[in-house]
Amino acid sequence: MPLFFVTGNAGKLRELQSVIDGVQQLDLDLPEIQALDAEVIIRAKLAEARRQRPEVELIVEDTSLHLHCLNGLPGPLIKWFLKTIGADGLHELAQRLGNDRAEARTFIGHADAAGEVTFFEGSVSGRIVSPRGGGGFGWDQVFQPDGHDKTFAEMTPDEKNTISMRRIAIEKFRAYRKTLLRT
Amino acid sequence: MPLFFVTGNAGKLRELQSVIDGVQQLDLDLPEIQALDAEVIIRAKLAEARRQRPEVELIVEDTSLHLHCLNGLPGPLIKWFLKTIGADGLHELAQRLGNDRAEARTFIGHADAAGEVTFFEGSVSGRIVSPRGGGGFGWDQVFQPDGHDKTFAEMTPDEKNTISMRRIAIEKFRAYRKTLLRT
Repeated sequence: MPLFFVTGNAGKLRELQSVIDGVQQLDLDLPEIQALDAEVIIRAKLAEARRQRPEVELIVEDTSLHLHCLNGLPGPLIKWFLKTIGADGLHELAQRLGNDRAEARTFIGHADAAGEVTFFEGSVSGRIVSPRGGGGFGWDQVFQPDGHDKTFAEMTPDEKNTISMRRIAIEKFRAYRKTLLRT
Repeated sequence: MPLFFVTGNAGKLRELQSVIDGVQQLDLDLPEIQALDAEVIIRAKLAEARRQRPEVELIVEDTSLHLHCLNGLPGPLIKWFLKTIGADGLHELAQRLGNDRAEARTFIGHADAAGEVTFFEGSVSGRIVSPRGGGGFGWDQVFQPDGHDKTFAEMTPDEKNTISMRRIAIEKFRAYRKTLLRT
């Protein structure tokens, strides 16, 4: 049975396909609702995707960045921070507010063919640093994960994919799906 | 013909009813989509409201706060800033970033019975100040409109309603509706 990943992002699709068999892209442009809770956003997207494609297995992912200096903002609203103040603006914000700690989180929401939803989370702690590196996308240039001396944007895709919050969430989902397919 | 105002907010309802005749509340809890453009958010809400109540005249409003120090953020996302860092957090942010200028904006979106949408905007410039006053709600305590020595929260409801961005938008809508009813 095919598993549909609702995304327009070719990079995210490739990463998932490299770990999970039988993943197909479902390129629906679904509106994201306003929330700080990624699970709320994902549930709404899965519900809308199911309206358009009922009775198939679906996954939706959401990756968020939580700054300690802003009590966890922007979280899933990171996209709008990037559009307005950019990655360097995030760094300036953390500097001026005197706290560079941050968490990057990925949530994967899986809806089985009956619509039952299960979540898988991956989280990586790190610091918001001055922009470095030309790889990656979004805020990769300013996020340096703990235990590493490179930002995500200074790593090769393989290096990043080995340690990323997305990979952690994907591995949890893979383990779950294995048990599921066995039953 | 009744005009339905989609809102759960009794204060906003009263303010509109005091200016426009025949306004009735439609208390639907509609999800807000993520966007920095209030018109995009309002259009989505009007479309959903029309699905639930077709062929009636509807209005939806959105009030946003734009900080110069954050290139216009949070805008319509202000609700999430209040939930995480609070009104005093907004003030601290403006202080630390060295720019206290802000704009408060209200957009009213009106859908006629055929679904044609028209927008009305009201805007007030001011400063983000240290919290003062016990009235109002949300960020009223930290917003001091230009040309006044009180924050919105230090004004009586009548004082605030005379000069507010919401009132400006409502007056534009009233003028529009008058011509509409005359034709």
